[in-house]
This record gives sequence, C-alpha cells and structure tokens, in this order.
Amino acid sequence: MPDDQPLPAPLLDRLAALLGPRGLLTDPADLEPHLADWRALYRGRTPCVVRPGSVAELAEAVRLCAAAGTPLVPQGGNTSMVGGATPDEGGRQVVVSLARLNRIRDIDPLDMTMTAEAGLVLKAAQDAAAGAGCLFPLSLGAEGTATVGGVLSTNAGGNTTVRYGNARDLMLGLEVVLPDGQVWNGLRRLRKDNTGYALRHLFVGAEGTLGFITAAVLRLFPRARESEVGFCAVRDEEAALALFRRFRDRDEGAVRAFEYMSGEGVGFYAKHIEGGNVPLPGHAHYVLVDLASSRPPEGGNTGLRALLEAVLEEAMEAGEVLDAAIGESEAQRAALWRIREEHPEAQKREGASVKNDVSVPVSKTPELIRRSSEACARLIPGIRPVPFGHLGDGNIHMNLEQPVGMDGAAFLARSHDIMETVNEVVRDLGGSFSAEHGIGRLKTDMMADWRGGAELDLMQRIKAAVDPQGLMNPGKVLP
Amino acid sequence: MPDDQPLPAPLLDRLAALLGPRGLLTDPADLEPHLADWRALYRGRTPCVVRPGSVAELAEAVRLCAAAGTPLVPQGGNTSMVGGATPDEGGRQVVVSLARLNRIRDIDPLDMTMTAEAGLVLKAAQDAAAGAGCLFPLSLGAEGTATVGGVLSTNAGGNTTVRYGNARDLMLGLEVVLPDGQVWNGLRRLRKDNTGYALRHLFVGAEGTLGFITAAVLRLFPRARESEVGFCAVRDEEAALALFRRFRDRDEGAVRAFEYMSGEGVGFYAKHIEGGNVPLPGHAHYVLVDLASSRPPEGGNTGLRALLEAVLEEAMEAGEVLDAAIGESEAQRAALWRIREEHPEAQKREGASVKNDVSVPVSKTPELIRRSSEACARLIPGIRPVPFGHLGDGNIHMNLEQPVGMDGAAFLARSHDIMETVNEVVRDLGGSFSAEHGIGRLKTDMMADWRGGAELDLMQRIKAAVDPQGLMNPGKVLP
Repeated sequence: MPDDQPLPAPLLDRLAALLGPRGLLTDPADLEPHLADWRALYRGRTPCVVRPGSVAELAEAVRLCAAAGTPLVPQGGNTSMVGGATPDEGGRQVVVSLARLNRIRDIDPLDMTMTAEAGLVLKAAQDAAAGAGCLFPLSLGAEGTATVGGVLSTNAGGNTTVRYGNARDLMLGLEVVLPDGQVWNGLRRLRKDNTGYALRHLFVGAEGTLGFITAAVLRLFPRARESEVGFCAVRDEEAALALFRRFRDRDEGAVRAFEYMSGEGVGFYAKHIEGGNVPLPGHAHYVLVDLASSRPPEGGNTGLRALLEAVLEEAMEAGEVLDAAIGESEAQRAALWRIREEHPEAQKREGASVKNDVSVPVSKTPELIRRSSEACARLIPGIRPVPFGHLGDGNIHMNLEQPVGMDGAAFLARSHDIMETVNEVVRDLGGSFSAEHGIGRLKTDMMADWRGGAELDLMQRIKAAVDPQGLMNPGKVLP
Repeated sequence: MPDDQPLPAPLLDRLAALLGPRGLLTDPADLEPHLADWRALYRGRTPCVVRPGSVAELAEAVRLCAAAGTPLVPQGGNTSMVGGATPDEGGRQVVVSLARLNRIRDIDPLDMTMTAEAGLVLKAAQDAAAGAGCLFPLSLGAEGTATVGGVLSTNAGGNTTVRYGNARDLMLGLEVVLPDGQVWNGLRRLRKDNTGYALRHLFVGAEGTLGFITAAVLRLFPRARESEVGFCAVRDEEAALALFRRFRDRDEGAVRAFEYMSGEGVGFYAKHIEGGNVPLPGHAHYVLVDLASSRPPEGGNTGLRALLEAVLEEAMEAGEVLDAAIGESEAQRAALWRIREEHPEAQKREGASVKNDVSVPVSKTPELIRRSSEACARLIPGIRPVPFGHLGDGNIHMNLEQPVGMDGAAFLARSHDIMETVNEVVRDLGGSFSAEHGIGRLKTDMMADWRGGAELDLMQRIKAAVDPQGLMNPGKVLP
C-alpha cells in the first residue's frame, strides 16, 4: 500500500484476518473500478475495498473502522449520477462494497413481499419477483447494475413512480448496520406498525450517511396481464399534461408510465441511434404512455386497448394529440420505449450537454419546460433544450444541448450558469433541484440555499446523533 | 389558577398577551374536555389550554414555553386509543389544541393535492376533496372528530389501508413548529424530491414528541365511480384469506377494504344494536369486501358487479364461501358496513372486553386468529374471542369478551395477562403490538421489550437531538 494512503497497519491486519482475501481488496488493479462511478465526475482514492460476505462480517468491519476513526464509503452498483459512492481524494476513505450480500432471503407471493440483501442487482430482484408470479415495479435505466441497497439509499424513482411511487414506497422494513457496528433488524413485513419513529424512512434516501442498509423487505404487486404503449405527437406541453389527465381520470391504476420528449430530442434519436426509426417524425412534442393492468382480459376483450383508443380519439378531437402510433406487439412496444430510453445516449452523441434532474408539481410541468427553455435561450443564444422524462410525476430531465458549432468545452464551462438558470425557474414553481438522483457530492453546496434554516439544521442534528464521529460517507448529502 | 398547578405567572401573562382570550383557556370548565380522551384511560391536569389562531402564534407560544422549560401536549380531535394526547397528573403540562388551525390552504385537482391545516377534521378533509371531484381516502371510525394533524401524528390506518396505505402514504409535505419554536416549512407538493433526509416521515407517527405538525400536503385520488359491497359467510379463517387473494389477483386496485368478523361478534351486533339485522345469520366467520373503481362503467356494464359475482362463484365452488349477500343499493351497502362499524359498540354492550390492536404479515392472519383465540381460552375458560378488522392489511383487532356470567371487573383485572397471551402469538408470527393506534402512554412500557437495543437507542438519540429539553409530549412513545 502506498505511503500516502494512511490506513493504520493494525486495522488493515485485523480487516484481513476478519474478511479473508475475497473480502478485502488492496491490489491497485482491484481498487480501480471503485474509484469513480460511470459518469466519472469525481475520481478518488482508497486504501482498500471491504467486501463483506455476511452482515456479521460487515458489522465487525464497521466496529473496527469506527474504533480507528476510519471513514467508510458504501458502494452498490456504483451508478450514481451525483458522485454519491465515490471516495474523496484524501486516500483515507475505505470503500465498502455490498456486492457479496446479494441473496434473496425470502419471497412470499401471498404476503407480496421479498426480503432481499443490499447487493442484489435490481434486475435480479425484478426477475425473482416475476419468477414468483409477481411484479417488483421499480424500473430505471441502470437496473442491470444498480443494487437494492443503492436504490433504497438513494430513494430511486425511475419510470414507474407515477403508478408505484419511489423506492421508499416499495419498502416495508430494513436491516441496517449502524455507524458503531450495531445491527438493527427492522425487517418487518407489516402493512401497519405504529411503534415509534419510522427509522426506516430515515435511512432510505440518506445515501449511506447514516449507516449501511444490508437488507430490505420489498413490496411486490400482481404482475401485468396486459399492457399497451402509445407514442403520440402532441400539440404542446399543455396538451401533454391534458393527455395525462385524461388517462388518469379514466383509469388511474393503469398508467404505468407517462413520459414527455421534445421534438429535438426525438430528432437526435433518429439521427444518432442505429435503427432509430421514429414513427411520427417532425413534431415538436411527444408523449409515450405505457398502460398496464393485472386484470385478466375477460372474453377476449382487451380493456387497455379500448381505453387507449378511446382516450386518444377524445384527445385528437380536442386538438391535443396530433398523431399517434400504438405498439402492436411486444417488439413494437420495446421499440417505442427505446426512443425514450436512448435519449441520454443520443444527446451525448449530438455534443456536449448539461443535465438537470428537477421536479415541480405535476401541474407546473408545461411552465417548467417552456420557461426554462426560454431562459436558457436568453443566456446562450442557439442553445438547444432537450427536456424529457417523467411528466406524470413532475420530474423532467431539463437537459440543454450545446448550440450547433459551439465548442463543447466552452459550452460546459457555462454549466453552472445553465443549471442556475433552470433552477431559478424550478424554485419559482415550488420545485426541487434534485428529483430522483439525490445530492451525493455534486449538489451539497446547494443544500444550504435550498434546504437551509430549520430543515438543514435538523438534518445536521440527526446526522450528529446517529453518526457522532462523522465516519459514514463523509462529504455527501450535507454541506 | 390553583397553587398546585405550577405555571410561572410571567409565562401565563405572556401567553395571555400573545393569544388573547380565545387563544388561552384557564377556566376549569374550559379545561375539562382536554383532561381525558374519549376512552378515559387516563385523566390528567393542565394549567391552561393554548389554542393558537395562527402558526406564528403557535411558534411564539412554543418559544415562550421552551424558555420557561414548560412541557407541551398537543391535542387534535382527542380520539386517541392509547392516551396519546392526555396531559399527565403533575399539572405542569400545557395542552396545545390545534383546533383553530383548521383552514384548507389549497386544493388542486390537477396536482391531486390538498394543503390542509392540522386542526381540520378528517371528515371535512374528505368532504373538501369530494367537493373538488376527488377522493381523500383515509377513513376510520373517529373521522367526524379526528383531525388531519392527529391522523398524521399517529400515522392512522383505518379501513382503506389495503388500497391506499396509511396516513404516512397520503402525505407529500409538512409544516412543523419545532421544539425551539422554529417553523419548518416543508409543504412541498412533489412526487419526487431527493434532497436530504426525509424529515417529514420522522414527524408522521411521532405522536407529537418531536414537534407540532401544523399543516400538510395531502395526496388526493380520483373519486370512485362505482362501488360494491359483499357480505360473505366463509368456511374458516383460511377461507377468508383465500377470498382476499382471489379479489387481489383479479383486480388489485379494486379492493378498497377487506374486513374479517367472527360469528360471535356478528351475533353481538344482531343482539345489541337497534335494527341489527344480519343477512346470513348463524355462521362462524364472515368477511365484508368493499370494491371501488374510478373507471367509468362502459356501456352500462358494471364491471365491479361482474367481478364480485365471478369471484364469489369461484369461491363457493371451492367451498371457501358458504353464502353471500350483495348490497343492491347505497342504503344496503351502508347497512352491511354497519355490521362491521358497530362491532366496538356491540362488544361494549355485551360486557367487559379487552382490546388488542395487533398486526401480522397478511399470510399469518388465520394463524393469529386461531392461535390467540385458543391460547386465551386456555388462560380463561369460557372467554369469548371476537376478532375483527382489516384482514387485507394484516391488522386484526384481536378482542376478547368476558365469559358469560363472569364479573366484568374481575375479567378486566386479567387484561394484562390476556394482552400478553395475544402478544406472545403476535411476536411468534413476526407481528407488531401496535398496528394502527400507536404507543401513546398505554404501551410505552412495551417499547424496550419489543423495540429495544439498537432501535430504541436510535429513537432516543433522535428524540434528544430534535427535542433536547424533552418538552414535547413527555411520557409518550418512548419509555
């Protein structure tokens, strides 16, 4: 170990004795994948990576590190958008990977619960639920890598929040290794339990700053028996919202996802993504609506298709929907979803872009899109707004693409101004500067401004009460 | 003011100056309704009742009391089942009634949110939602008296948890007056907002021990366009659960309530309640299922009636349902619900009874009912189990009626043993000793045993961090 990574030798020896060679990585090549996440916003250093093989091993490792005053950085799938799981540059922070705690301890289709360990990959959790005839509905781009512990620690959202809520809403109980190495077993699978403070909700969304989530009781749902996907060109942002309302009013439980895309973003998809066909090219605003139902279709009558067609017809008559395509097969539905899913990649290939993960009350989404697009255009003439995302829950990725011909680096140098410009509108609309990605390291300096006063004061008092040494994921969430 | 109620005179003067005669009650007759709740398990004393007319007034009153070291007891509708809002016998605790903070600040059928103040009566919140064409689904026996602040502070459950969750799940944001008099404005109406710790979830269910909830953003839902109620005699407890599963698998979103009742309890209803007709008398186990849907019935086809009839037919063929009655009108549906709603009153008229508000995983409800009934019968021969309640969410009110002919007081003297007997089964099944009523003062002595170790230690650290003087509702929740 290099001299400039000061982990006390006795601690390292004790960790090695506790964890064995599979549980403690010190070889620089083994450390490498743990030093930065996939966005590579930050690159840190670590003396070693702890990979416990059991909760008891993790608890003992945490006790040892707490006694030595050594800070710990939890890592799940390492897919943070905000540097939430990257160690700092100081070289003292030990990375703790939960990857080996990846068992499904229990799955019960009658209770509709699954008890899963933190390192289980989200996709594997979805698959296990499906194998038991159920649905675990959390779904997001990184689901093949992100883990149960990670999505809970960040209260991940994704595409299905409009129907199933965020990760928080899908969790009934937790097991947590606390900063002093105590294990809290709160793995209750109860729908009602009013026995003191709801500690589980404190750890969900705390981004590992209060302890390590090691396992969770997750809620399952009946699986979909039919689904439909419609891809619609809409008149404007208001028409997109009106269309959402039409679906919700007709069958609130059927709307699994409702996604907005700008014409420019859809154009980037057609231009840059292989096989990127767009069924209704040339419009300024699009919506993808995904309907699903667990009701058995009675007598061959597909209820959702009738719903989809009826609502689209009404909305066309009202001038809200200009044109629409309906996925006629699983393959077609997947192809329509791909237009939405490839938005980040298409934007990347078009050039430099600045990402904003913001939310507003659902009713304010049209105003958010319009006003922040206009404000950014005043800031940098020629800038290309490519907003897309979860209109049904008010979370729009208000991204901005560089002007044609502008130098990418020069554009990115304006990132802060662009984000500020968007956030000014967000603030005015009663929104949030981080909807689903969290704070991590990227946005800690915004906490005082947005959540300052009584709120931040309370957070800091709670942090001090739960983690008095300040060893849990230091430098994240709180300024 | 009597000498034995030691409120410092300068504090009383300051409160009087701040609040005026409507805002500060000191006359013993005015204090009387605030000294005990409707169950009258405890009767306390208070030097005065503070009734602030604004959040600013409350904040200033809290500051004054904090400076004087005076403890405060929040009261909403005063319908606690566990003495959660009753001052102690010491005479120093000042009751704070939120009754005058009862405005609806905002209601938005597009966002599907309502911002309501703490003192708003639950029924008024339901009515206001209905007036805006929406549904606020929280529903419980005390809804004509219980308040928004009270149901949030206790995370109330009720009949519709199976479909809409508990009070916690119906809340997006809070406004809270903290123990030092700071006001935290967290009235955000966002479906996604990951900006630090979820403080709102800490105050919900804290029973006023961390601060005063003064207002909340509540979630609304589309109103029901059709509903059906079925009253079924079922073979046994397992058949009740199997029937629940049949409905859930066919249309999970349609099951608004699923209630179990024992034959004995239904018999008490028939015997004691005026007009207490039971459509299918003489069975040992009953279920009430309430279906609702916001989907417009298409072409005169009432989808829920078809669902109800189809499921009942299947369940009859399987021998699970022995007989069933369907409410043919709003009046009939209300009459069927009355059998369930009058259970507490019928039990009261039959004699002395011991109440248990317990929950288990949904799959364990048959075992809970059977095993705890048997165990209680071994404890007190002739005891009459009258379990009823929310089978669909695992929360059974496992009540026990005195043996015929036994002295009521002698029976109640065994309350502790009876509760322990039930709780032993609950514990073995991974359940909770307080499902929806909370801890209040009644159950604090069970916290160490059930939630002790790391969990209770964390709760106490959080309490100390948020309310370092320990002035918020002392003696409640934590031992």
